[in-house]
Amino acid sequence: MSTTYTRLTKGIIEELEKIVGARNLITDIEKMEHYSHDETSVEEYAHMPEVVLTPLDVGQVAAIMRLATKYVIPVTPRGAGSGLSGGAIPLFGGIVLSLEKMNRVLEIDEASLTVTAEAGIVTNELNEHLKGKGLFFAGYPMSLETCFLGGNIAENAGGGKAVKYGVTGRYVLGLEVVTPQGEIVELGGKVTKDVSGYDLKQLYIGSEGTLGVITKATIRLLGVPNVASDLLVPFKSAQDAISVVPLIMKGGIVPTSIEFMDRSSIEMTCSYLNESLPLDGVGAMLLIEIDGSDEQQVERELIAVGDLCIQRGAMEVYIAEDASNRERIWSVRRNIAEAIKVYSPVQSLEDVVVPIGTIPRVLPELKRLSEKYDVTIPCYGHAGDGNLHATIVKNPESSMETWQDLEPKILTELYAFVVGKLGGKISGEHGIGLKRRVYLKNLTPPAEYRLFEAVKKALDPAAIMNPGKILW
Amino acid sequence: MSTTYTRLTKGIIEELEKIVGARNLITDIEKMEHYSHDETSVEEYAHMPEVVLTPLDVGQVAAIMRLATKYVIPVTPRGAGSGLSGGAIPLFGGIVLSLEKMNRVLEIDEASLTVTAEAGIVTNELNEHLKGKGLFFAGYPMSLETCFLGGNIAENAGGGKAVKYGVTGRYVLGLEVVTPQGEIVELGGKVTKDVSGYDLKQLYIGSEGTLGVITKATIRLLGVPNVASDLLVPFKSAQDAISVVPLIMKGGIVPTSIEFMDRSSIEMTCSYLNESLPLDGVGAMLLIEIDGSDEQQVERELIAVGDLCIQRGAMEVYIAEDASNRERIWSVRRNIAEAIKVYSPVQSLEDVVVPIGTIPRVLPELKRLSEKYDVTIPCYGHAGDGNLHATIVKNPESSMETWQDLEPKILTELYAFVVGKLGGKISGEHGIGLKRRVYLKNLTPPAEYRLFEAVKKALDPAAIMNPGKILW
Repeated sequence: MSTTYTRLTKGIIEELEKIVGARNLITDIEKMEHYSHDETSVEEYAHMPEVVLTPLDVGQVAAIMRLATKYVIPVTPRGAGSGLSGGAIPLFGGIVLSLEKMNRVLEIDEASLTVTAEAGIVTNELNEHLKGKGLFFAGYPMSLETCFLGGNIAENAGGGKAVKYGVTGRYVLGLEVVTPQGEIVELGGKVTKDVSGYDLKQLYIGSEGTLGVITKATIRLLGVPNVASDLLVPFKSAQDAISVVPLIMKGGIVPTSIEFMDRSSIEMTCSYLNESLPLDGVGAMLLIEIDGSDEQQVERELIAVGDLCIQRGAMEVYIAEDASNRERIWSVRRNIAEAIKVYSPVQSLEDVVVPIGTIPRVLPELKRLSEKYDVTIPCYGHAGDGNLHATIVKNPESSMETWQDLEPKILTELYAFVVGKLGGKISGEHGIGLKRRVYLKNLTPPAEYRLFEAVKKALDPAAIMNPGKILW
Repeated sequence: MSTTYTRLTKGIIEELEKIVGARNLITDIEKMEHYSHDETSVEEYAHMPEVVLTPLDVGQVAAIMRLATKYVIPVTPRGAGSGLSGGAIPLFGGIVLSLEKMNRVLEIDEASLTVTAEAGIVTNELNEHLKGKGLFFAGYPMSLETCFLGGNIAENAGGGKAVKYGVTGRYVLGLEVVTPQGEIVELGGKVTKDVSGYDLKQLYIGSEGTLGVITKATIRLLGVPNVASDLLVPFKSAQDAISVVPLIMKGGIVPTSIEFMDRSSIEMTCSYLNESLPLDGVGAMLLIEIDGSDEQQVERELIAVGDLCIQRGAMEVYIAEDASNRERIWSVRRNIAEAIKVYSPVQSLEDVVVPIGTIPRVLPELKRLSEKYDVTIPCYGHAGDGNLHATIVKNPESSMETWQDLEPKILTELYAFVVGKLGGKISGEHGIGLKRRVYLKNLTPPAEYRLFEAVKKALDPAAIMNPGKILW
């Protein structure tokens, strides 16, 4: 893919200003800096755009794309910039198309249990709109307080409740997408089943902005469960904690969440938050949530899961039933990524996903890698989905050159193990983006990779849509 | 799409025989007749293939596709032939590639809660393999006693339990697909979340055999719920019955099934099965299933739903808790399509799907159409999904010419209403196939239709994969 992109001229910028208005066009370098990176390492991955646009409606987005197609200008859609794989980074300059001003809830249809909102709405804010109606959007990305709905969809975000509720894509009934050529397409709608033509909606979900711009979505809602409680379960060894996970899943109970946090992650996060959890002799903890409509059933399931954990070596089972305690524990879980970043900014936050039955084999491999390469690898994540955020952290005593040499070696070995030995994948929810594109190419069988390329070429023939991401 | 296909020569047939063996190649006209149609009207839609192949493994399938690509021969994949939209009909002759001999269960992984099976396995048989392990495949297509897994996936079948469990596609973790060019591709795997590249798996799901041949699937399993009970709820008027449905959904309880059956459907089916249900003064019935792990919770939910129905005009609420009564009622539901076909073979079995909140508006429109065109329209279906199988039945006193003139007029009006007025779609689970391709083209906005065509061209550039289906 060796497209030559057009650099923006004064004339083109004037045309863009005619589309969005001067107030929605940024060329000031200081202001554009914010849009040059996401939550991946700025040193490693940032790149300045040539202009940032903050359109107000889908018509403007379509006009922008028509112009970008006409002049062959790369366009990088952007949500909150909270991504973890470089998806929002304008690798080839060009236009950053930020959805931040397209953030309205357009309709709540209680009879059909749907909400329709623009892609730039903060996910948590969407739920705030719905709270009073006893309905909620069951996607629960850990970054929900900042991330945008459009970004969730572009990454097919998972999050803390996917064990029971599935990932974002399960709730997307309809999508409004602007194609690279500037056509506005409505995929799906408010129906919960649909086989009228190809399921393109699912293709755009998780496409990381490389096939089109998501501008609006219709989301399927569920009733808020009446009852939810959490178990916090400490184990002496991380391996014991992880080994319980497939047993819980097999037991017939479907918890809302099964989150794993090793000692190292918890320590850093408690320190960061000035919080404290009981950590004497603890190797790791499981945070298990169970919700439902029936208090007695939830209680029965909590007890059953708690008993199973005790049988399998748990030190203790703490039950958190009131909202305040539950929020304390979840706040720790949600802040682990940030905490580790604060203490160890030079790192690689990984997102491997493996079949549930194989999850006990991941920690020994992390241990082997950390010993071989003299790095620490705090680990936490959505164990109930087989999705672990192993975070490879640079040894403070080694040099940056050593780290830059080691990092790809470690990832290559880790991915080869996950994919080759366990039948897993290199990303469960953070996406391929920029960060993992080389590995995707190396680890994907050529026939499958060619299908990716064929689909990309069909939908974005001029290769202007977030170039350099996913495919390489 | 004006491809010129190559007619099979003796030489090509000999090459095919070298691939599959003489025992897996059929040219005998009488034997091929079975493969010339599916469950749509034979008079209207059947077409003979030139050869039928029954390969034994994916290697043979790949070799067949390589040959078909080389010579430009159309290939129509076939499952059980139980489809309702003409998807399995070899419209351009060529090869029918039947998966009937690729019917093995390859692996049950209890630790990861998956089963991997070849596409030619009968869906119910898959569940028979799993029964003893307390696990099940939660797709429940109504034709599960005959249909194949591959066909379910190609049609993204819905069925009777999609209200709670979703459609087939939700459970497909991995797919083995043979491309038109004969490459074998493994999409997904055993992981429950995956954003490693584009979600092509979802593109093949519901693609009705027009993008590739599905040969194997890895299915996500759930624990069999301990408790399941059914409510059979008669209403004086069909409209009252239908109007309760969105209220049940909104109430926070998620039943496993909410099926609607009008009087006419029930009468025909009871007659067909020599069965009897209490029908005095009954306009329609709802069949509502609730399952779960907890007997008391299921009971509470049954009572809550039953109460709601009574408040909204139900004549009675019958509870069926023992397996035998439950099976009697579900057998009636499962056999409605067949029964109507027996009494009224000249018909159009429809599959419209609408947003749940709008479902009460469908029956008055059916009434209007039946009066305007002097036809009867028995109606039944998956009301909890907004998916109704209105069956337009030819008036026995009118001629075939009249019917052939009326049918497209009725469908055009029905679809225009469903799509234009209710925001629905023309097919929720039976597929576009041959039957609905003209309507899909007329009702799909051009920009979206062009995306369909672009994807089709990217994945099947020679247009040999089940030509004439979905797109027109």
